[in-house]
Amino acid sequence: MVPLKDVNLLAPISKPDKIVAIARNYTGHCEEQHLPPPTEPMFFSKFSSCIIGPYENIVLPEISKRVDWEVELAVVIGKKAKSIRPDQVESYIFGYTIAQDISARDWQKERNGGQFLLGKSMDTFCPIGPSVVTREKIIDVNNLNIKTILNGDVKQNGNTSEMIFKIDFMVSYLSQIFTLHPGDIILTGTPAGVGVHRNPPLFLKVGDVLESEIECIGKMCNKVV
Amino acid sequence: MVPLKDVNLLAPISKPDKIVAIARNYTGHCEEQHLPPPTEPMFFSKFSSCIIGPYENIVLPEISKRVDWEVELAVVIGKKAKSIRPDQVESYIFGYTIAQDISARDWQKERNGGQFLLGKSMDTFCPIGPSVVTREKIIDVNNLNIKTILNGDVKQNGNTSEMIFKIDFMVSYLSQIFTLHPGDIILTGTPAGVGVHRNPPLFLKVGDVLESEIECIGKMCNKVV
Repeated sequence: MVPLKDVNLLAPISKPDKIVAIARNYTGHCEEQHLPPPTEPMFFSKFSSCIIGPYENIVLPEISKRVDWEVELAVVIGKKAKSIRPDQVESYIFGYTIAQDISARDWQKERNGGQFLLGKSMDTFCPIGPSVVTREKIIDVNNLNIKTILNGDVKQNGNTSEMIFKIDFMVSYLSQIFTLHPGDIILTGTPAGVGVHRNPPLFLKVGDVLESEIECIGKMCNKVV
Repeated sequence: MVPLKDVNLLAPISKPDKIVAIARNYTGHCEEQHLPPPTEPMFFSKFSSCIIGPYENIVLPEISKRVDWEVELAVVIGKKAKSIRPDQVESYIFGYTIAQDISARDWQKERNGGQFLLGKSMDTFCPIGPSVVTREKIIDVNNLNIKTILNGDVKQNGNTSEMIFKIDFMVSYLSQIFTLHPGDIILTGTPAGVGVHRNPPLFLKVGDVLESEIECIGKMCNKVV
């Protein structure tokens, strides 16, 4: 046995063709933004160059003062999928893991003309892991507790049952737009409790310890440096 | 010698880590949208899964009736770049090629909550080629004629001198946000003459022949099927 503290766990997927993420997909996260639940999904992307491992450090960029957390259930695609129906989706999923969709809110919302891309894709902004749990091992992916714990305080505490667009729908929908390839990652949205919608707002700072946990999948722990 | 018609030229880069593209970067393209030149750049992305070769077919997706062309000078990154200054950019560039930033205007603008991603990333929406011309071979990258010819009619006819944000600025700017890796592709904007801003608007249809040409780089020709 090698103790976890003596190894550097890498991300279980390091160079996916795509990281696609959905905005505003938990009822609680819509409520904290005072927005009605969307009637159509809204997707954005993160570059794979921002992936880090489940215990690696999140590096605060000098160009943002408003870096926030978003714990998400990540779907990992298992085989090439094009124009599949929702009832076919399950067999195209390899498994599930945890992701933090770290977000520079100033760049996501106030800069770059409203396109989320830059604020979502800074280096180290996508911790993933600790492992990919294959789909057969998860009894009900639509009923898993999902949490962010910052310096020991629970900040996000939701359940995947709150998803507005379900995984079957999302994967089918995206497969109508483009081909999904093995290893592609779909981030399925975040529950209420992000920093920007708190009163007062709270953002990550050097020295913070960010834990991300999803029932039946595991836990990540990333330090902020 | 093997005649070109007997071979299938693949894209010179098929799986870049990133395709980053800038919106509204030619003065003429701003004018045709009745928009002032931007004071800050606006970047979006295309997934690498939409890359095709310089003579491969663009497949019209059933889900869009408004598929448009945008010829662009593509910068190919040659080495890892993080936080570089504009005067350092040249040595980080491997070379230049031609790209068509094919765009489903309905999905880019009216769907997906204003995020361009889906309308820009449908399969076959990024013809690239015919080859990457190394930077030493291009005497002045800021003075190259750039054209789209649709079924023999010149539709876009600009010059890279019209770029609002120059290549040195763009690459330096992006390198402040995230690490650029070898093979990353930066699409530098399109001149006036896209279909959506014509009166009446004109979109691609089955049977169209789309030629894309940049002085000193070459020519691509993609059929629409």
